[in-house]
Amino acid sequence: MRLGLDIGGTKTDAVALDDDGAIVDRVRLVTGFGAEAVIRTALDGVERVAAATGLDPRQFASIGVGIPGQVDAARGTVTHAVNLGFDELDVGGRLSALLGREVKVENDVKAAALGAYRLLTAGPDAASPGTAFSGEAFSGEPSAWSSARSLAYLNLGTGLAAGHVIEGALWRGARGAAGEIGHIPFDPAGALCPCGQRGCLETVASGSAIARQWATDDPYPVRSLLAAAEGGHAGATRIRDRFVDGVAAAVRMLVLTLDVEIVMIGGGLSNLGPWLLDEVRRVLASWAVESPFLASLGLDERVLLVPAGFPAAAVGAALVGAPSAPEVERIPHG
Amino acid sequence: MRLGLDIGGTKTDAVALDDDGAIVDRVRLVTGFGAEAVIRTALDGVERVAAATGLDPRQFASIGVGIPGQVDAARGTVTHAVNLGFDELDVGGRLSALLGREVKVENDVKAAALGAYRLLTAGPDAASPGTAFSGEAFSGEPSAWSSARSLAYLNLGTGLAAGHVIEGALWRGARGAAGEIGHIPFDPAGALCPCGQRGCLETVASGSAIARQWATDDPYPVRSLLAAAEGGHAGATRIRDRFVDGVAAAVRMLVLTLDVEIVMIGGGLSNLGPWLLDEVRRVLASWAVESPFLASLGLDERVLLVPAGFPAAAVGAALVGAPSAPEVERIPHG
Repeated sequence: MRLGLDIGGTKTDAVALDDDGAIVDRVRLVTGFGAEAVIRTALDGVERVAAATGLDPRQFASIGVGIPGQVDAARGTVTHAVNLGFDELDVGGRLSALLGREVKVENDVKAAALGAYRLLTAGPDAASPGTAFSGEAFSGEPSAWSSARSLAYLNLGTGLAAGHVIEGALWRGARGAAGEIGHIPFDPAGALCPCGQRGCLETVASGSAIARQWATDDPYPVRSLLAAAEGGHAGATRIRDRFVDGVAAAVRMLVLTLDVEIVMIGGGLSNLGPWLLDEVRRVLASWAVESPFLASLGLDERVLLVPAGFPAAAVGAALVGAPSAPEVERIPHG
Repeated sequence: MRLGLDIGGTKTDAVALDDDGAIVDRVRLVTGFGAEAVIRTALDGVERVAAATGLDPRQFASIGVGIPGQVDAARGTVTHAVNLGFDELDVGGRLSALLGREVKVENDVKAAALGAYRLLTAGPDAASPGTAFSGEAFSGEPSAWSSARSLAYLNLGTGLAAGHVIEGALWRGARGAAGEIGHIPFDPAGALCPCGQRGCLETVASGSAIARQWATDDPYPVRSLLAAAEGGHAGATRIRDRFVDGVAAAVRMLVLTLDVEIVMIGGGLSNLGPWLLDEVRRVLASWAVESPFLASLGLDERVLLVPAGFPAAAVGAALVGAPSAPEVERIPHG
């Protein structure tokens, strides 16, 4: 059995996977703020899942942690985790010492890519019985995806970023920066991005983009925005349409660069559900009408949503810790 | 020994590589036009290299062909090779039958990515004695690259496209479309692209982009453009600067998406040499001044030029045909 944690800014998900990768236990905790509280939350999550499965933490084949911020996966250290209240923390070392066993650490978006890939190739059976699987999201022929060798996970949260699975394996990049597509400019005449560039994808297609453009007391600005657009508010409609265009542009960018089989959308804004999926597919299909080249790539058929409630990052974190590797056909370089 | 061909629109390169991957023989031929003439040219290339090495074509460990157009690498078929004068041709099947042995086929940009990666990791010794290696292009510490696991080859020819090596292996994509970044829009207010979209990277950063914008009798429009810009012509300066910006944007896109260790620029326009490399690095460095995020990625240090005269696609084609594969550490997916 494997154990995975997804330490988020407000909630922490902990799951146990059986040897087939199916979720057999799941716990949800409130994440503490600051280095010590985060470590305590993680420990609590491990202990509760271990207790539920009747295993000692040392008996799991792997334990992995998905966490926001810049992660050095080889060392297990995390930096710039502003939402968690620390600037630098040896998450892997601290937890390994406390648990008396190895604990792997991965960036949460990258971990989620691995979890999404697991779901794609294993099918809905990989999810817990309680997970609602959207037929909309997984329309088509799911069996066709069991042999998929590539996937991009597109995270729409406060920011916009992606994680890649290539040849069945997570691709972190040379410096762990693979998937930072939120900071690729989308419109040179666009808004100034906190990163210092102008018109980045993240300035139109993210939670922070909507919060910046749409002032509201609603704790979910996107909900207020969509209601206003629905009610005919021109400014809201413009912001909403640019948001959808930006998400579609992210999908196009991922496919034209990597030619991944599937782009699976997750993150907080994926809770917009079938509406979001339909809108993104509609925009991609409209581009295909103008461009035979894009049409030949079938972009709209490659987009899926992470099913509501599926803990992609926690599942992926459990798999990050896995020690061995499947054989894949590789082309040698000399 | 391995044998590789690069069948270009005007010239065909054929090389023999020894077991260390170093070029031991090289032949250059004029490419015939049309299906039959292309097959004859390829056959001629194989026979001449074989004769020079004293081997029978069946004695090579592998024979591979790099060719423009849409390539089905598994079948060896090529479609839409407009510059070669055919719409569909079973290049692999025809050559295999004529030579009495397997012949692999790969898209030329993807083959060149493999050749560029071979050069990067093996160092200048991998090139033929006659190849001029630019110290500018390979400044820094070449030894640091011998362990590189990733590279993007950015081809600046009539069009703009890239090929990727990830974890030491060519990544073709789910449908062979990985690296089609020339058709990612760069400016939504830009020129209409033949692909049907607007403002694609290819409309500013390619040979066709320059030919479209700069009318001249010079057979090398870019030469005429640069001379005019050098002479103070405002229109020429604008086209030239947008070209460099577009190449730099392609580098940024490749690094932010894939986080490849190196982006190596090749193709006809890479003959602009150190001037091009300096300009692209200058633009990337200027962006880094505005953006601490980009600065942290060290984009300008990741760009190299394919050394003048190095037949990247022919070398890569020889390696495409290689049968076995190195072991790499992979993360399992279940």
